[in-house]
Amino acid sequence: MNPRSLTVALVQHACSSDAAANRRHVDAALREARARGARLVLLQELHDTPYFCQTEDPALFDLAEPIPGPRSEALGALARELEVVVVASLFERRAPGLYHNTAVVFDRDGRLAGRYRKMHIPDDPGYYEKFYFTPGDLGFTPVDTAVGRLGVLVCWDQWFPEAARLMALAGADLLLYPTAIGWDPQDEEDEKARQLDAWRTVQRGHAIANGLPLLACNRIGTETAPDGSGSIDFWGHSFIAGPQGEILAEAPPNDPEILIQEIDLSRAEQVRRIWPFLRDRRIDAYQDLLRRYRDEATTKNR
Amino acid sequence: MNPRSLTVALVQHACSSDAAANRRHVDAALREARARGARLVLLQELHDTPYFCQTEDPALFDLAEPIPGPRSEALGALARELEVVVVASLFERRAPGLYHNTAVVFDRDGRLAGRYRKMHIPDDPGYYEKFYFTPGDLGFTPVDTAVGRLGVLVCWDQWFPEAARLMALAGADLLLYPTAIGWDPQDEEDEKARQLDAWRTVQRGHAIANGLPLLACNRIGTETAPDGSGSIDFWGHSFIAGPQGEILAEAPPNDPEILIQEIDLSRAEQVRRIWPFLRDRRIDAYQDLLRRYRDEATTKNR
Repeated sequence: MNPRSLTVALVQHACSSDAAANRRHVDAALREARARGARLVLLQELHDTPYFCQTEDPALFDLAEPIPGPRSEALGALARELEVVVVASLFERRAPGLYHNTAVVFDRDGRLAGRYRKMHIPDDPGYYEKFYFTPGDLGFTPVDTAVGRLGVLVCWDQWFPEAARLMALAGADLLLYPTAIGWDPQDEEDEKARQLDAWRTVQRGHAIANGLPLLACNRIGTETAPDGSGSIDFWGHSFIAGPQGEILAEAPPNDPEILIQEIDLSRAEQVRRIWPFLRDRRIDAYQDLLRRYRDEATTKNR
Repeated sequence: MNPRSLTVALVQHACSSDAAANRRHVDAALREARARGARLVLLQELHDTPYFCQTEDPALFDLAEPIPGPRSEALGALARELEVVVVASLFERRAPGLYHNTAVVFDRDGRLAGRYRKMHIPDDPGYYEKFYFTPGDLGFTPVDTAVGRLGVLVCWDQWFPEAARLMALAGADLLLYPTAIGWDPQDEEDEKARQLDAWRTVQRGHAIANGLPLLACNRIGTETAPDGSGSIDFWGHSFIAGPQGEILAEAPPNDPEILIQEIDLSRAEQVRRIWPFLRDRRIDAYQDLLRRYRDEATTKNR
């Protein structure tokens, strides 16, 4: 097979409460990534604002914008100018009282090639996303672009093998995760280490199980909740893995970075030829994946 | 939550062409594991024989035995004598021309508590399992024992998140994988390293995605195909992971080992409380997991 080289970039940075400054940072990073050869740039989750879900505040829905809207149009214009595919992450206002955590894909001609509305929504202390984000209703559908078919998912989706699999079954060439995840500063160091490695490992597992390269772009910096109830140390560590889950590039925990990596998209098929998991899936025996819990199995023999 | 301690053992060893010697080794290891405190012992895949699937030879079906049969009854008797739960792996003769790769679970009273017939069957050069093993027809059903509900899967199942998920949804307390996997000696060292780490990583990913401890028991030693067509260096590295995918214990690549580890089964619920993935699964949007491929998605927009 002939190599199919693609240079990708992940933009990892801290976010301030100055949204205009964040947008300027993102736009400058897109220019730099392109100048360094990237043809696909993945931004982190909700890159224009602090991670505002640490408290539940109805006023914060003001941060949302329609898509298309001013910010998506500006990003699309920049994609067109730079001739680069951009995967961005926006707080989408769909209707009053109806908002989504939405990844948007701009093709290198600037066209809004597609969007993905975060399907799995977390909710735990400091991450009150179920208040802000209506669960996605567009399913797990990859987006075709000039550089390939992009299986874009968002953050909490990272923990669900089902999401990655559905993207792979729909022909995704890459899995991409904008994300915002960090440590509770109160946690012990060993717990922090387990959490970081679990986050990396479960995603590497998706790369392996599906024979696909995977990109995860996370933010950095400490952000304190507006009401002082807590804070999050976003752990960075944005990374790029190959289709055997091997780490190709990884950003540091605390520093901004434009992580650039050339990947060979043809290697996915080489790997799938030696590990043909798609051939052997037991689709005749997976029905219960559509259930919440297999309760009868849990009481059988008792 | 009160800790629920369970001491487990994994028996990693080489297999010779002398089946009686292999059985004696297994039986002695069960005694030693019990003497060292194990209440649950996991054996490796097809522990009584060499890995006979390197060639396709109809005569090798002679290695299979019915279950119950002489070997399963001997293992059950040993489980009863030692008062230990045993997960073994046998070549099951179900009918002439109908054979399975079957894991058997003996409760500590020696009773055959249940069996699992390998559902995903590999077939690639040196691993001609589709010739020998009819795909399982018992589904993904865990087995209740005195030490917990055991989600027993086998080898190639390791690569399929669906299998682990279905066991978790059925209330499994642990995931267990008897396995026989190794390197092609012709492969480059970096490819070998990627394969080993992918094998470990995808399984750690199952532990994480399901919030469950996971045990994987692999064989060691180099075995040459009877026709000299190739050989496999079984890579050992049997391991025990916790519900965040953290490695709790790991065996070496080349030496026999009885790997003993105390695990706290209550930690799985603690982990699931901070990472409640089962709460957030999008069962309304997983239908296409039952399909071979989402072909229409792969042609949309083209």
